Amino acid sequence: MVIVMKPKATKEEIAGVEKLLKNLDFGVHISEGSERTIIGVIGDKRKLAETPLELMPGVDRVVHILEPYKLAGRAFHPESTTIKVNGQVIGGNKIVVMAGPCAVESEEQVISTARFLKEQGVTFLRGGAYKPRTSPYSFQGLEEEGLKILAQARKETGLLIVSEAVSTRSLEQVAKYADIVQIGARNMQNFHLLQEVGRSRLPVILKRGLSATIEEWLNAAEYIMNEGNYNIILCERGIRTFETYTRNTMDISSIPAVKELSHLPVIADPSHGTGRWKLVIPMSRAAIAAGADGLIVEVHPNPKEALSDGPQSLNYDSFTALMEDIRKIAVILGREI
Amino acid sequence: MVIVMKPKATKEEIAGVEKLLKNLDFGVHISEGSERTIIGVIGDKRKLAETPLELMPGVDRVVHILEPYKLAGRAFHPESTTIKVNGQVIGGNKIVVMAGPCAVESEEQVISTARFLKEQGVTFLRGGAYKPRTSPYSFQGLEEEGLKILAQARKETGLLIVSEAVSTRSLEQVAKYADIVQIGARNMQNFHLLQEVGRSRLPVILKRGLSATIEEWLNAAEYIMNEGNYNIILCERGIRTFETYTRNTMDISSIPAVKELSHLPVIADPSHGTGRWKLVIPMSRAAIAAGADGLIVEVHPNPKEALSDGPQSLNYDSFTALMEDIRKIAVILGREI
Amino acid sequence: MVIVMKPKATKEEIAGVEKLLKNLDFGVHISEGSERTIIGVIGDKRKLAETPLELMPGVDRVVHILEPYKLAGRAFHPESTTIKVNGQVIGGNKIVVMAGPCAVESEEQVISTARFLKEQGVTFLRGGAYKPRTSPYSFQGLEEEGLKILAQARKETGLLIVSEAVSTRSLEQVAKYADIVQIGARNMQNFHLLQEVGRSRLPVILKRGLSATIEEWLNAAEYIMNEGNYNIILCERGIRTFETYTRNTMDISSIPAVKELSHLPVIADPSHGTGRWKLVIPMSRAAIAAGADGLIVEVHPNPKEALSDGPQSLNYDSFTALMEDIRKIAVILGREI
Amino acid sequence: MVIVMKPKATKEEIAGVEKLLKNLDFGVHISEGSERTIIGVIGDKRKLAETPLELMPGVDRVVHILEPYKLAGRAFHPESTTIKVNGQVIGGNKIVVMAGPCAVESEEQVISTARFLKEQGVTFLRGGAYKPRTSPYSFQGLEEEGLKILAQARKETGLLIVSEAVSTRSLEQVAKYADIVQIGARNMQNFHLLQEVGRSRLPVILKRGLSATIEEWLNAAEYIMNEGNYNIILCERGIRTFETYTRNTMDISSIPAVKELSHLPVIADPSHGTGRWKLVIPMSRAAIAAGADGLIVEVHPNPKEALSDGPQSLNYDSFTALMEDIRKIAVILGREI
Repeated sequence: MVIVMKPKATKEEIAGVEKLLKNLDFGVHISEGSERTIIGVIGDKRKLAETPLELMPGVDRVVHILEPYKLAGRAFHPESTTIKVNGQVIGGNKIVVMAGPCAVESEEQVISTARFLKEQGVTFLRGGAYKPRTSPYSFQGLEEEGLKILAQARKETGLLIVSEAVSTRSLEQVAKYADIVQIGARNMQNFHLLQEVGRSRLPVILKRGLSATIEEWLNAAEYIMNEGNYNIILCERGIRTFETYTRNTMDISSIPAVKELSHLPVIADPSHGTGRWKLVIPMSRAAIAAGADGLIVEVHPNPKEALSDGPQSLNYDSFTALMEDIRKIAVILGREI
Repeated sequence: MVIVMKPKATKEEIAGVEKLLKNLDFGVHISEGSERTIIGVIGDKRKLAETPLELMPGVDRVVHILEPYKLAGRAFHPESTTIKVNGQVIGGNKIVVMAGPCAVESEEQVISTARFLKEQGVTFLRGGAYKPRTSPYSFQGLEEEGLKILAQARKETGLLIVSEAVSTRSLEQVAKYADIVQIGARNMQNFHLLQEVGRSRLPVILKRGLSATIEEWLNAAEYIMNEGNYNIILCERGIRTFETYTRNTMDISSIPAVKELSHLPVIADPSHGTGRWKLVIPMSRAAIAAGADGLIVEVHPNPKEALSDGPQSLNYDSFTALMEDIRKIAVILGREI
Repeated sequence: MVIVMKPKATKEEIAGVEKLLKNLDFGVHISEGSERTIIGVIGDKRKLAETPLELMPGVDRVVHILEPYKLAGRAFHPESTTIKVNGQVIGGNKIVVMAGPCAVESEEQVISTARFLKEQGVTFLRGGAYKPRTSPYSFQGLEEEGLKILAQARKETGLLIVSEAVSTRSLEQVAKYADIVQIGARNMQNFHLLQEVGRSRLPVILKRGLSATIEEWLNAAEYIMNEGNYNIILCERGIRTFETYTRNTMDISSIPAVKELSHLPVIADPSHGTGRWKLVIPMSRAAIAAGADGLIVEVHPNPKEALSDGPQSLNYDSFTALMEDIRKIAVILGREI
Repeated sequence: MVIVMKPKATKEEIAGVEKLLKNLDFGVHISEGSERTIIGVIGDKRKLAETPLELMPGVDRVVHILEPYKLAGRAFHPESTTIKVNGQVIGGNKIVVMAGPCAVESEEQVISTARFLKEQGVTFLRGGAYKPRTSPYSFQGLEEEGLKILAQARKETGLLIVSEAVSTRSLEQVAKYADIVQIGARNMQNFHLLQEVGRSRLPVILKRGLSATIEEWLNAAEYIMNEGNYNIILCERGIRTFETYTRNTMDISSIPAVKELSHLPVIADPSHGTGRWKLVIPMSRAAIAAGADGLIVEVHPNPKEALSDGPQSLNYDSFTALMEDIRKIAVILGREI
């Protein structure tokens, strides 16, 4: 942490800051510049989190040097983390593909989709039973009924299940039926939910918030890890910008950036990231080419009749083409699917 | 709703869309343009919410004409709504000022602040007992203990209490002690929490999400109203942009915009909106001048020692100056404080 | 400037950075923290502008402490600057109102508007002769013909003239006829044009770019000042965000922020800032209440027939109401119009 | 175009709009809905560009259905355009790689870089002679001297030259020496410069503006095409968002989106798009995987000593690795380099 003093800070003001820091056992280095004095602070800045140094007389600004998260950072855990989920590994050499309908609609829909996906080499079936919808008048999901259908699909195909929890109550339900719980973009800073997920020890997909910086995303992971759950898969799903042609702007560069800053695996969701099925295939290729550890994609046997997010769902033919493309790109990166 | 067909849509494709809509009892108007055909759809589009018309053969785009919310809209309730809370009225001629510390720290801090605010003409005391913090290492609030302190302040001063709920569990606690519950920016799309607040009938301050459009904000209000709770006060608290000098960019224009689109009262939070106490006074004046029905401001007896958000808190002298300024601006607008 | 070394930077790497800086005559302070070493650099960092320290072995990041502009900063010129333009003063106690049609359309339109504005106490007539339009198919302005009409209006009413230059060629024309030249948002980083304006010594309104930070805006002013022209009036006109209800999001907080960081006067353009005439009056009040030194507003005798920006232009009645409102707010701030 | 009337629009108001449109020879379709009347307008809306229909009594909103550009759109020219530049083809099956230093610094630097790039299969040498820099204190380029060095490199290696013009004056110089002129992000809406480029008939790389929508970007292309120059290569270089870890957020999805909307070729600039050399290789792979027709990349023999943008420049080893990667990805897409 560096404290930048005002151009006209007095000696007394500088001494005041120095004294406070030394009382708190911090190391202090004072640099008197031509225009300003800056004070370097050495020690664990988390002890200073609640001291508003900005308000001390003579202080202009406080510049944070270290990232605020620790457990999620690569400095803490230099090796990349792999997450084991009932026989599948995420974050290793193998790229994982999760696919399925946006919302669980019926047993028939889910089972037939699951069978198709199984043939394609998919290992995780995704499907929403609790749907966070912008309008209260939109379809809100089948809830526990939907989870039971997913469990049935798992039994019949062996695919593992990913499903979203939107509250502590739905988390309890999802934990009963799913192999991985998903925390959606709108809940990335629902800190109570993050803490509950942390206590649950369930493997979790943590989606990036609509307007979350990479740092805030890793801070959200830190909330979960701080409760003892290290089984976190990050998921880039597009951020909000001024562009309106796409539903969101998929920040592909966050994939290699997160790989640099954190040891956690990161996957991509091109369906929500673009909101347009025609863009899902090229953006899936891009995500894998940029180093993603996997994809989560919306697939529907008949997107025209989907109860949620039809315009961004792939049909079977398109999904088959997607798998062919990314298999080849995986090889280039020395990986496999 | 208007359906824009592709430039080369065939007659069969156009007839297909027409048939589907007529089967659903919609009125249909077909306009054959020089470049494209467009189809006007008449009827309650909520019935079409789950039909992905974009995927029908020949369809290029669907353009929504009507806003998706209803109860929150001014068309539904042309008169401005006033909300009565234990003898105080919000949204009427009188401008309401809510103030207090970001976080409840101690009985002494809260009671002394409450006494000061009471003298200043403030009618609501705000204070956080449950704090949503970006980092798990930051102070998370005193929880029920904090609510009890607020209740004590209410008893001693008569100020009504505003406090934030961050989960359904904390909502139950807040409901026991506070007069108004606050839903923070990070929970604006925590739909389960919105539904719980809707069922509670408690007056609620609904803050705009960090990256929420005005339409999404009114949709969030709709969630609450759809459960039967119409006592909603909207609160502009800044949105996320590329600017980094301020903590957020306060969208003052949302105040008159919301007054046009909705009948609900709207207040402003210049403390979170700017993150810098020096900007709080000019932005408070701006918000009132733009037509806000009130302010919610962070005040601390000694901001340098605040456990949360010190840099954006006003001390007593600054707050006194703020009240003087906005009293005069209220008069210009034919209002009072 | 502070250089943050990587967690595992070696002694040799640290010594390498130290040596480079000392060779360039910088003062160096090394702070060895528990996790990292940080190096404080003392001296004029502008000498380091072209040295990519980030690429030296062991360096993680470079954190800039001082703002990159100098002449535009309040440290350089602590008193607020007032700009004198042919008898009028901008940035002093008096708030200046500039008004007129978006585009000059005809002599009749301009002269009648000018006469109306004169009666209202306006001192500057604005009107576009060169129009930067997003589409090549939109009206591009009357060019020199338009400037002559403005000059005629000046002769008849005594109002001073503000008009936009969009290129070095149009700048020469505008300089012949106008009292203040305007540089629009799209040209805020047209550095050659800024340099030409700097050499011209003409008073200039410098609008904030659509996605410019406050720092970049002040850097743009620095370009002009660096050529010797200190007569700069900054103008907030809204920035681009995800909100689509308004044409731009007017960043009212930039007004007091600029007053803190810079000595230059700052005015506001609520017409482009909102794109909706109904929001112009409340946002004008807000801008003045936040401390703006003036307004620039689009007024048209008959907005329905305007060739450009009709939807955001005020008619005479609305403009009269605006003037009444801001006169009263000016008094509260100890100012006048 | 669709005109949405207010909920309480009267019959006279609806008739008024109808009459105006019929007088202008538009086809009109009126749909009376349960809540509102909407009016479909048939005809060339460019004739209505200057009629502010929003201000007519009873009108609530005007919704544009067709894109405002024409020549740049795929409807106008369904086949993808290929651009021939002195023996090289851009936009065809072959992916083009343009590379070189951010700024031309010396003959030695440029010639040695050019020789290296030639061996790598690069066909275009990029180098800035006129540099648009945020601060006036940064290196502004060698100007004509720099162009002469590029011409020399062309003579010695046969590489074709790409260089940026920042004003009409520099455009004349660039046109003398370069094979392709580049219009940078900050000048994307410098409309006079676009018109000059349009008149010049020079092949042009048109970079996307920092906060430009895809529609505005294609409108900027339209300005150039409207003057008769159809040799336009679009270039995605990152947009401005709230994320600060990367210099910009590279919108990879704009690549397939532009391919859908327009017939023009599109390339990607991962150097400016990310601002971090470590991200350049994964983002180059991503851009090619998403369908880009080429790349423009900053390469420097010794990035540590670069006078501009060192932190985002690749050295020779990294660039060699990049070429290997993208060659393999090109094959997957049925293309070559």
